[in-house]
Amino acid sequence: MKLFDGGRAPNPRRVRIFLAEKGVEVPLEPIDMGAMEHRSQKVTARNPLQRLPVLELDDGTIISETVAICRYFEELNPDPPLMGIDALDKAIVEMWSRRMELHLLMPVAQAFRHAHPAMKEWEVPQIPEWGEANKPKAQKTLRWMDDELKSREFIAGDRFTIADITAMISIDFMKPARVPLPEDCDNLMRWYKAVSARPSAKA
Amino acid sequence: MKLFDGGRAPNPRRVRIFLAEKGVEVPLEPIDMGAMEHRSQKVTARNPLQRLPVLELDDGTIISETVAICRYFEELNPDPPLMGIDALDKAIVEMWSRRMELHLLMPVAQAFRHAHPAMKEWEVPQIPEWGEANKPKAQKTLRWMDDELKSREFIAGDRFTIADITAMISIDFMKPARVPLPEDCDNLMRWYKAVSARPSAKA
Repeated sequence: MKLFDGGRAPNPRRVRIFLAEKGVEVPLEPIDMGAMEHRSQKVTARNPLQRLPVLELDDGTIISETVAICRYFEELNPDPPLMGIDALDKAIVEMWSRRMELHLLMPVAQAFRHAHPAMKEWEVPQIPEWGEANKPKAQKTLRWMDDELKSREFIAGDRFTIADITAMISIDFMKPARVPLPEDCDNLMRWYKAVSARPSAKA
Repeated sequence: MKLFDGGRAPNPRRVRIFLAEKGVEVPLEPIDMGAMEHRSQKVTARNPLQRLPVLELDDGTIISETVAICRYFEELNPDPPLMGIDALDKAIVEMWSRRMELHLLMPVAQAFRHAHPAMKEWEVPQIPEWGEANKPKAQKTLRWMDDELKSREFIAGDRFTIADITAMISIDFMKPARVPLPEDCDNLMRWYKAVSARPSAKA
């Protein structure tokens, strides 16, 4: 199998961190998104949405969408569990993972794509007012998480999960997206430092 | 257990259809979103995001987020499978389900919230330009699906799955969102008629 990777972009990194936590090694095929290579024929033929990462299995089967790729490896390599261990736990992890996607990663990504001048060619039409409107949404979610993290170690409970990966890469993405991090959030910062210090964060 | 339901809104309906396909009955607690009851203390105490539906278990445990609720019932009641049957199939269903969420439901919802005058109080700031920009995104996804549905019966393959539910409720949502349906898409319309004729669609 082969993972078409997109370097520093948040979703490719989300999958690499997930794989590092699993201890699974997958050969990477680097795609230079800065050179718009994700819009090349090579990528488009595998994912018409021209989004990365894309996993290609040995028989040519394609799996795209970050969490779908993670789900594949979770099912094949259940240890350590990153997406829950039983019906209720899987639901709780999915709940927090989606909350982090919809109310943190998504607003940060919208801020980046719609308010950053360098994204003008990527996002057509670029609507700066929409980009700016997303910045306080991301910050509101972080203040909520600061409160939640008072009483537990990780985003979805007492175990590191995919929800932590999504939240961490979203916070790292705030810098290029120019969304100020609310640094007075002590519980959030304690958690952020802890997850950033895991070896997987370098993936 | 109890499902705090939101009537005609797309996500509450997504869960009700999922439960109907499973043959699972859950007592509903109706929440009148037209009267802004999803912002009441009753809902906010259970889901600070003030979004519906919300599932409350008998011990008070809360599961919010549509797909997290579906995942809970999928794990408890695997038949009929609506989220895949093995590692690869689960990944493929998740891929299509997310494609339908991110590139169909999401643009339709953004069109509704940002371009519909009745949503002015719900979505602050409402940015009509962003709402309008989403309409062609949804239509582009439907044209792609029309092409995909040439060669298979359902969105994710030869079996009805959660991806079909998400796509169907998104298309139904296009009417209030004022996104014109591309009716020349014959394969899409064949699929849409078939899934709309299932008894679950009335849920």
